[in-house]
Amino acid sequence: MVQSQTSLGKRVRKADALERVVGEARYSADFSLPGMLYGKILRSPHAHARIRRIDYTKALQLPGVVSVITAGDFRSGPTQPAEVHAPAGTYDPGHEEEHAAGSRPNGSRTVFAGAKALWAGQPVAAVAATSLQAAEEALGLIEVSYEVLKTLETAEEAMKPDAPLLHPNLFTTTLGKAASKPSNVATYVELVRGDLERGFREADVVIEDTYRTGMVHQGYLEPRATLAKADPDGKVTIWSSSQGSFGVQQQAAEILNLPLDKINVIPTEIGGGFGSKGQGVLEPMAALLAIKTGRSVKLVMGRDEEFKAGRPGAPSVIWVKMGVKRDGTMTAGQMRVIIDGGAFPGGPVGAATNLGLGPYKVPNLRVEGYDVVTSKPSVGAYRAPGVPQAAFAVEQHVNRLAQAIGMDPLELRLKNITGEGDRLPNDAILPRVGFRTTLETVKNHPLWQKRPNGLFQGRGIACGMWLGGLQPNSCFLKLNADGSLGLMVGTVDLTGTRTSFKQMVASEFQLSPDDVTVTTLDTDTAPYASNSGGSKTTYTMGNAIKQGCDNMKRLLQERAAALLDLPKDQVTYRAGLFHSMHDPSRSVSLKDLGTRSQTTGGGPLLATGSAGTFRSAPSFAAHVVDVEVDPETGKVTILGYWAFQDCGFAVNPTQVEGQMQGGVAQGVGWALTEEYVFANGVMRNPTFLDYRMPTSLDLPLIEPTLVQVPNPESAYGIRGVGEVPIVPPMAAIANAVADATGARITELPMSPERVFWAIHNKTM
Amino acid sequence: MVQSQTSLGKRVRKADALERVVGEARYSADFSLPGMLYGKILRSPHAHARIRRIDYTKALQLPGVVSVITAGDFRSGPTQPAEVHAPAGTYDPGHEEEHAAGSRPNGSRTVFAGAKALWAGQPVAAVAATSLQAAEEALGLIEVSYEVLKTLETAEEAMKPDAPLLHPNLFTTTLGKAASKPSNVATYVELVRGDLERGFREADVVIEDTYRTGMVHQGYLEPRATLAKADPDGKVTIWSSSQGSFGVQQQAAEILNLPLDKINVIPTEIGGGFGSKGQGVLEPMAALLAIKTGRSVKLVMGRDEEFKAGRPGAPSVIWVKMGVKRDGTMTAGQMRVIIDGGAFPGGPVGAATNLGLGPYKVPNLRVEGYDVVTSKPSVGAYRAPGVPQAAFAVEQHVNRLAQAIGMDPLELRLKNITGEGDRLPNDAILPRVGFRTTLETVKNHPLWQKRPNGLFQGRGIACGMWLGGLQPNSCFLKLNADGSLGLMVGTVDLTGTRTSFKQMVASEFQLSPDDVTVTTLDTDTAPYASNSGGSKTTYTMGNAIKQGCDNMKRLLQERAAALLDLPKDQVTYRAGLFHSMHDPSRSVSLKDLGTRSQTTGGGPLLATGSAGTFRSAPSFAAHVVDVEVDPETGKVTILGYWAFQDCGFAVNPTQVEGQMQGGVAQGVGWALTEEYVFANGVMRNPTFLDYRMPTSLDLPLIEPTLVQVPNPESAYGIRGVGEVPIVPPMAAIANAVADATGARITELPMSPERVFWAIHNKTM
Repeated sequence: MVQSQTSLGKRVRKADALERVVGEARYSADFSLPGMLYGKILRSPHAHARIRRIDYTKALQLPGVVSVITAGDFRSGPTQPAEVHAPAGTYDPGHEEEHAAGSRPNGSRTVFAGAKALWAGQPVAAVAATSLQAAEEALGLIEVSYEVLKTLETAEEAMKPDAPLLHPNLFTTTLGKAASKPSNVATYVELVRGDLERGFREADVVIEDTYRTGMVHQGYLEPRATLAKADPDGKVTIWSSSQGSFGVQQQAAEILNLPLDKINVIPTEIGGGFGSKGQGVLEPMAALLAIKTGRSVKLVMGRDEEFKAGRPGAPSVIWVKMGVKRDGTMTAGQMRVIIDGGAFPGGPVGAATNLGLGPYKVPNLRVEGYDVVTSKPSVGAYRAPGVPQAAFAVEQHVNRLAQAIGMDPLELRLKNITGEGDRLPNDAILPRVGFRTTLETVKNHPLWQKRPNGLFQGRGIACGMWLGGLQPNSCFLKLNADGSLGLMVGTVDLTGTRTSFKQMVASEFQLSPDDVTVTTLDTDTAPYASNSGGSKTTYTMGNAIKQGCDNMKRLLQERAAALLDLPKDQVTYRAGLFHSMHDPSRSVSLKDLGTRSQTTGGGPLLATGSAGTFRSAPSFAAHVVDVEVDPETGKVTILGYWAFQDCGFAVNPTQVEGQMQGGVAQGVGWALTEEYVFANGVMRNPTFLDYRMPTSLDLPLIEPTLVQVPNPESAYGIRGVGEVPIVPPMAAIANAVADATGARITELPMSPERVFWAIHNKTM
Repeated sequence: MVQSQTSLGKRVRKADALERVVGEARYSADFSLPGMLYGKILRSPHAHARIRRIDYTKALQLPGVVSVITAGDFRSGPTQPAEVHAPAGTYDPGHEEEHAAGSRPNGSRTVFAGAKALWAGQPVAAVAATSLQAAEEALGLIEVSYEVLKTLETAEEAMKPDAPLLHPNLFTTTLGKAASKPSNVATYVELVRGDLERGFREADVVIEDTYRTGMVHQGYLEPRATLAKADPDGKVTIWSSSQGSFGVQQQAAEILNLPLDKINVIPTEIGGGFGSKGQGVLEPMAALLAIKTGRSVKLVMGRDEEFKAGRPGAPSVIWVKMGVKRDGTMTAGQMRVIIDGGAFPGGPVGAATNLGLGPYKVPNLRVEGYDVVTSKPSVGAYRAPGVPQAAFAVEQHVNRLAQAIGMDPLELRLKNITGEGDRLPNDAILPRVGFRTTLETVKNHPLWQKRPNGLFQGRGIACGMWLGGLQPNSCFLKLNADGSLGLMVGTVDLTGTRTSFKQMVASEFQLSPDDVTVTTLDTDTAPYASNSGGSKTTYTMGNAIKQGCDNMKRLLQERAAALLDLPKDQVTYRAGLFHSMHDPSRSVSLKDLGTRSQTTGGGPLLATGSAGTFRSAPSFAAHVVDVEVDPETGKVTILGYWAFQDCGFAVNPTQVEGQMQGGVAQGVGWALTEEYVFANGVMRNPTFLDYRMPTSLDLPLIEPTLVQVPNPESAYGIRGVGEVPIVPPMAAIANAVADATGARITELPMSPERVFWAIHNKTM
């Protein structure tokens, strides 16, 4: 039980590995309740259409159908059971206000289409029936009168002055101020430093180009599913596989107009989120059906629904212009970042504008960003949202500058790399970071001396940064009668955090991780937890756990001192025992203390830990990739992939490496094969057969190298590690393809066709 | 939301009332898991028999049967899955040691019969099968070779020197020391004070008699049921409707030889326990079946199984001799208390010997107690275990003494009643109690002036005390973003404690009880809680809650002071707002604090409360009952029932009254109709048709009167209230029958037949 060596930094087996492998882990779709209804969603077949009328009279008459809901059910006031909103059979949105950001309670606008359908796949109505068959059949009986409108397929099209307005009441926001004229641009960002003109004048080489990335899906294994139950006393319980139960609770409360404490969200195991499941999509819908019917309702999305309405990653168009001196000094950088947020505002324009040039000292810069609405599916977060797109542009550009001045691309990066005290484009000052150390680790790695030299082989390097999240986390801690410890949290475990938390508590008490139980509670009972996202859970919860353990140790020391009849400061702890400093044979064990606390004075031993906001801990990755390109077909084969990343401190190196390898795997897909194919705004490839993600056979061994520059704000030196591994891959592979072929590819994915034509029509 | 009036002492609606009434509350039998197996138990048909061999080969061959277990599976070492203990098909206990207290790990001896079956209904084997039908059919295919032995039907028979020994290795324990010769007496207790002989010499009247009570069942609505699941990593999860999850966890860990943290017990709603469900009966069995099969297993007991093996209340034979002076001064008391514990040691001899004479100043006394094993079902706790039996004897005796000296029975009690500083028979000193106050409340009540005066009508009075429990309890507390509070506990709610806890937290923060969520967690995550039993949950948890609320308020005051930019001591709290003492307009609300804690510095707001052992808080009840007896049939009709009880402070008067009325209802059944009928040790009436509990039509309005003498050790003045209401009814009704008929009945139940013969054969 007791171990003197710390388990921090060790490759402790994932706490939930076995149950996942043998199929015992329970994901959201695994939960059912007796008498449960099955829900199905009717979705718009059009990417932009006025909805004249929804007639679901026939659907309601189908045996087994219990309820049909539409945007009309979110019209007003607190949510009420069926008696109040009698099923009318029709919904006529004609008199409703046009959709616009802010025109309805936060989020409800994304539940169902109102006066207009804004993307192909947007929910229009939902059915709850006693069987899945009845629910599916009922969808075909709902009659929707659409007036099809012009589709805005790209952000550039939507930004044209004569483009039709998707949201008539959307006004561009700049620094929190709204414009006076409506527009399809939701947000405009501008970051300026120094004298851009002078910067470009001082440069010996200036290169500019435009880079394009398409819409991509996070591709998590588990499509969204939820189960909702409404109690007769008005309490709603939601089983949800989200990245944050408290976020789902808050969202459902706002959309349903219910007090927060009338909603309990039970987190289930989650089969991947990658940012997209930071928000509930099905939950408010299932909850409303449950409230209206007084029964529990299960909603499960198919893979096609996931593609069409699962909050994918945003497309982008990024124009970059950079200037550099012959000696490698960067003098100026300019970017115009257009993020296509899809049907609703909220594209990740902030990070994209700030972090693309973030790793480099660019004395003169101007970055403009546009969050644009189009007729595509509404986007969500996807690992380091916005930054892979920006890096695809900037990191290729850096290589092109290096080539132009005849400098090693790693040397050019080292010459301009930012560090502690430097400012980001948005003027924020960098804390202690490991950017330079990571680059130097690449430089000193044997691989950097051994380059691929076959025909049509090449090497690419690219970097990337991510700022890191910093929302609060907290925990409850208890000592059990057997001397084991229980840690209770509210954080959803996406990345192995339960295992890291176990290691932290175990290490604080010099115990084995097996002596610690970690449980994620529901929103009714959990200490508050922010979303598991933004690369921060291990960092911020780590601080809460350290505080909780310190509090517990103080309490235990007092009890032990009383039992040993010693002054508190003469009692020390080591590996499961509190003992007298002067006579180690006088001791009391954790087990003794735990058992006694349940029978005699003092009472059970409990503690809390709570960590607020601190400085974010920027992470950094440098990736090196070797490829071989088949000039006959344009197919890119990855020969080797090396990922270097500053993780601050790796509580569990295997898990950090897993994040790095996972990010690269997704990046390879985004780079080479993945993309939404649209025709008139309708996604044409919503299956894994046609939306091609890499399989294990498509991937090389991805070799991770951990760099550990401690984050001084973390009790354990931790930095978030989940996001940054997806930032460099697309640029690194593009740089490798350019190195192998001499052809520069500026649009994703680098499909065989695109690579073939690039080779045959070189545009270096 | 906010209310300035406290909700303490108010008739707040039970938190779980609605879900119970509409059938939404989930009891243990309501839990199922996919792929679950159904368990059934084979029970001994003999009350005492040697088991030569159990052959379950045929049962294992029945399609659908997955596993059969017997005592052989508990033979040795840590519990292992099926691979280790291959199903042999037979169990031959011949070479096993004879059963004896302590000869096996604590509790395992009560799971299955080993070398001997010790009561009719004792589990002999259990089957797990894919259907209930297969499990039931398999029971018939298990061949058990019994050698039937002599049955010891009564404790008196078992105490005879030549009685066969039920447990060959059971030695009578006296003050912790074991005798040298085995016996059927498990424990002997002797309490002595003063000079008994002189006491009787000083008395003007001495009366002696013997009183008998039979075996009775608690009669809870919900028979025992459990569901157990074994994970591949060795973790066992048990859904259990017990009075204490931590107790069930501890018991299962000991019996299964598993570390405590490998067992998680999830408490379900409970449909009554009354002490009997303080211990798990099915849980270790279901857990072992789950471990052996690697599947989840559900075990549900039928009502007949409940009667035969559900840990009923103990029978007793109590001889009492008391002496009193003409002026009413009690001079001497002597008791010989024989408790029939059934098949195993553990009858409630301690409370029976100490508390029967506890309410009275008896300067000279000698109380002897015997806990005896017999061939009856193993008994459990039943509300104030042992004391109703003792009170049935003593409280009748007090009335007989009063009659003999021509004194009002209430006056005689008032003259001799104990109070703060007096000693109990076991020499413990009474703290502040409300004994006298309660009796005076009866005396001053209008009913005491208005006596029934019809033919064959009569009035009885009886009293009773209960010491009260004092095991620790603890809680976690959190402030939510909406300003509501969450309280997390481990206590099972038997009596409305969730509602009382809500009221406490709400009152501390001057909020509505609706702003507080109370949740009972499982053993993995709950702050430690002792069993809900012994009349103490509201008292001890009340102190933990008070401490938790104080801790939370301190924390909030600090945050509020920082936000208001004021010194901490200049910030006060009132009804949801912290504000400046000097300028009430400068304020911050609970909601503000909750919301901010989730986004900015300081972190989420959590607190703990933990209450250890303090002095127990004795409770006291005086009951008055009017009856009419039909001399032709012997039927007793209750005309009116008045219960007076010192509850210290009634957090929720409706719930206290419910406890009082419930105790009386059970007492009326025990008094008039309920009893186990045995033939050769086999219970002959294991149905509610033949074991007659009172229905609502059998009961009069039971009028409760609350007396509130605060318990100084409780933050709210609370005393436990659950046990004592069942202490006086049997004696009170017997006294009323005697008053109505002139016939004294000394044996329970006072069935029509027994009353008829008593009238026709008066033995006053």
